[in-house]
Amino acid sequence: MKPLIPIFTENVHLSEDGAAVEILDQTRLPNEEVTLTLRNREELFEAIASLRVRGAPAIGIFAAYAIYILSNQTKCRDYESFCREFRANKDYLDSSRPTAVNLRKALDRMEGVVLAGRDKPVEDIVAGLRREALAIHQEDIEMCLAIATFGLELVKDGDGVLTHCNAGALATSRYGTGLGTLLLAKELGINLRAYVDETRPLLQGARLTTYELMKAGVDCTLICDNMAAQVMKEGKVQAVFVGCDRVAANGDTANKIGTSGLAILARHYNIPFYVFCPSSTVDLNCRTGEDITIELRDPKEITELYFYMPVAPRGVRCYNPACDLTDRAHLPGIVTEKGILRPPFEEGLRRLFGEGGR
Amino acid sequence: MKPLIPIFTENVHLSEDGAAVEILDQTRLPNEEVTLTLRNREELFEAIASLRVRGAPAIGIFAAYAIYILSNQTKCRDYESFCREFRANKDYLDSSRPTAVNLRKALDRMEGVVLAGRDKPVEDIVAGLRREALAIHQEDIEMCLAIATFGLELVKDGDGVLTHCNAGALATSRYGTGLGTLLLAKELGINLRAYVDETRPLLQGARLTTYELMKAGVDCTLICDNMAAQVMKEGKVQAVFVGCDRVAANGDTANKIGTSGLAILARHYNIPFYVFCPSSTVDLNCRTGEDITIELRDPKEITELYFYMPVAPRGVRCYNPACDLTDRAHLPGIVTEKGILRPPFEEGLRRLFGEGGR
Repeated sequence: MKPLIPIFTENVHLSEDGAAVEILDQTRLPNEEVTLTLRNREELFEAIASLRVRGAPAIGIFAAYAIYILSNQTKCRDYESFCREFRANKDYLDSSRPTAVNLRKALDRMEGVVLAGRDKPVEDIVAGLRREALAIHQEDIEMCLAIATFGLELVKDGDGVLTHCNAGALATSRYGTGLGTLLLAKELGINLRAYVDETRPLLQGARLTTYELMKAGVDCTLICDNMAAQVMKEGKVQAVFVGCDRVAANGDTANKIGTSGLAILARHYNIPFYVFCPSSTVDLNCRTGEDITIELRDPKEITELYFYMPVAPRGVRCYNPACDLTDRAHLPGIVTEKGILRPPFEEGLRRLFGEGGR
Repeated sequence: MKPLIPIFTENVHLSEDGAAVEILDQTRLPNEEVTLTLRNREELFEAIASLRVRGAPAIGIFAAYAIYILSNQTKCRDYESFCREFRANKDYLDSSRPTAVNLRKALDRMEGVVLAGRDKPVEDIVAGLRREALAIHQEDIEMCLAIATFGLELVKDGDGVLTHCNAGALATSRYGTGLGTLLLAKELGINLRAYVDETRPLLQGARLTTYELMKAGVDCTLICDNMAAQVMKEGKVQAVFVGCDRVAANGDTANKIGTSGLAILARHYNIPFYVFCPSSTVDLNCRTGEDITIELRDPKEITELYFYMPVAPRGVRCYNPACDLTDRAHLPGIVTEKGILRPPFEEGLRRLFGEGGR
């Protein structure tokens, strides 16, 4: 394989002076590219709460940098007061979004550095926090690259790939998961054609995925979600690649609403449907998809079209589940950074992600 | 059956003085209810071209009234000059939208009155045109009522019915086709629960179907198109009812994009999927769906969300077919005003709509 040159600039990163975290404001995309340089407590919190940074892995990376930056601003000289301040900042950031597991995971991992530093001077602990945040970021880049590389086995030059929602660099670090293979293929000179579901109600496909793919020069076509069956029927796509929110022990997969229907359609048209899954999203505590709770979200997301004007009658009732469950029976494989799993998934998931798996 | 009281006011009708056609401006719904009273040539044309009146049957009724109103304004005293003027008006109105078959059909039928009136005074021909327009309207009401009544056989109190796009009174006359059964059931005290696909890109479901159902007091819930599979999986719907643009001789059905995918999903979940089809949409000249051309529409419909703001990157390529084909194999029946057809459809369609059928 040729050496890899990242085409897409990472979304979340530490500023050059190490005193701030920089992000592309996702609420302004695709109409405006606004880079935010965030360094104070309230603006770091608000960036997560208002979805300026979104995507579970990206939120985890952001939170790690955020708690490091706040720790670096400390005036505390003794361990006990530093520790109290750290906990207050951690709890505060952790409350910015209730459902993002990666947020909590990253903050817990950062806290581990503080707890292990009881005998060290505060400066050393802060230096350790910086290293840990950079490590969390670096590990995500490697995880994405591994997943994207495995995905290359599933496509050949000229193939069309349908994708849903946004599982690209904006939601993770470099490459992304579901989009990673498309971006990586481009770097390697393999030409894939992407079909992008707009992904109602929040239009992540229309607003973010097309933005990323166009930036990277990947051939892409935006469709409304209800056009996927037609695109499949016409032979335009040879595979479906999606990311995931959580994968249960048996392989049942929770992902953005619309994913399970897409899987049924893909199966009907004999098109392989792959879930791209970093280990951080595997949840062996959920035996099957039935153990995963589906979030019901604000009807305004449907009726008011993101932050624009209403397009439905005032007071109309909406049913607005944030994700759905794709039965494992519809999956020929689950792509992880440790390889592609084939059914039955129970054994493979346990082998890769039980005990020793991180 | 109890006597029927129409709950929904018809959309297109002749004004009280008979000199204008009145419509509810569909481009302003659901945010504003604006009734337009149209009497001059240019505004009648513009109402069709700008989709202020839409839905093939509604356009046919509108065009019949429009050509009558223009004929009623004539200053011609002799047959020949009246005829020339009629033809000019007819060609003008006919050019307002290229693909609406009902527009041409209604205008041809009105022209028949003129051609049969060669020996009559102009006033008598104009009176005949008025009767013919009212007849076209009345026949559509009866056709819708017949279809809606047959549909009642397919549901029982408490059932959930999923619908796509808008096949209600706004698109036809009273009741509508696909929505007719829901409105009629309400009148008869049968409680159905409607699930309404928003129907991207033009959001006819979100803007118009929910508006009609709420007006009529029918229990309804708006979903994004990609949520249909989830709603089915959860057992919320017991049937899918859709209208159609055209039905081929073998039963293959063209309808709003998203319909064929919905049929595949319904079949997967063992939910009966019914096409509601007035005879005017059956096209025996098309042997199968393959003979029906799919219209590709303006990408702006996807990227600019009706007449609002852009939500996708400038210049993104779009694939925007206006409708898709549902394979007859996915249809347990086709509901027409002459009864419900069961497979194989060839024979039934020929029997009902061949030769003697209009």
